[in-house]
Amino acid sequence: MTVPDSWTERDGGIERSFKFRDFSEAWAFMSRVALLAEAANHHPDWSNRWNRVDIRLTSHDAGGLTQRDTDLARRIDDLS
Amino acid sequence: MTVPDSWTERDGGIERSFKFRDFSEAWAFMSRVALLAEAANHHPDWSNRWNRVDIRLTSHDAGGLTQRDTDLARRIDDLS
Amino acid sequence: MTVPDSWTERDGGIERSFKFRDFSEAWAFMSRVALLAEAANHHPDWSNRWNRVDIRLTSHDAGGLTQRDTDLARRIDDLS
Amino acid sequence: MTVPDSWTERDGGIERSFKFRDFSEAWAFMSRVALLAEAANHHPDWSNRWNRVDIRLTSHDAGGLTQRDTDLARRIDDLS
Repeated sequence: MTVPDSWTERDGGIERSFKFRDFSEAWAFMSRVALLAEAANHHPDWSNRWNRVDIRLTSHDAGGLTQRDTDLARRIDDLS
Repeated sequence: MTVPDSWTERDGGIERSFKFRDFSEAWAFMSRVALLAEAANHHPDWSNRWNRVDIRLTSHDAGGLTQRDTDLARRIDDLS
Repeated sequence: MTVPDSWTERDGGIERSFKFRDFSEAWAFMSRVALLAEAANHHPDWSNRWNRVDIRLTSHDAGGLTQRDTDLARRIDDLS
Repeated sequence: MTVPDSWTERDGGIERSFKFRDFSEAWAFMSRVALLAEAANHHPDWSNRWNRVDIRLTSHDAGGLTQRDTDLARRIDDLS
């Protein structure tokens, strides 16, 4: 299990922030992440403020970071 | 492979129309169908006009109706 | 009222097709169009088939093409 | 400017949490809130964790709570 360089490990999870031009672009990105998450049956803890999206991935059932998180992180990275 | 009663078989596919109060409700429904479709890696031919959503399910690669269509139809029915 | 070159006038409306890499990209685009439409309180007649989105704009209440259609068309063009 | 009972005033903003059956339902709700926000040109600070959506409304440009927040709060309340 390797954490992609683009993500920061913190408190048993990995985190990354994304910035866009406006809410519409941020929302389009979130819509794609939602598809990925549901397909993987693994969902992010995430927040949005206008053009900014902060994502945290952790495996709540496993009490920390697992391969499911790093896999989803890589798929999210592939979107941008 | 059984076609749910709520769907109509036509030209090698199954079809159903959905009506909602307004665009917002129709869009919320479509957003859930999009999640189902991507998770199943099987996508609808669909159209929307304000509060109305028309869905057609067929398996283009198989040239007609398959179990993937009736499975997705049932999952879509479960949303409403 | 000028129809953008990227759209085709037909039967009292204007139409344009969009193609994307996959469903996820098409869906992200549709999510942005949905925001535009709701903000303008003017909604498209549109359909989607995997990576393809076909949009038709017409003003049903006016029985044909109006400025609201060409305005929305231009905003949709600005997305791509 | 009246804060709806369903929202809690805190640090110059108002907050409310929403719980749903699963991610799909939460996402459908968020999709409708996104439409409201873009139409009002006023966007929430919000987070999602599977079936849970936490919304905070404040007017960053005004440095605190304004009518735009309570208006949007009421429209969000009308969704559920």
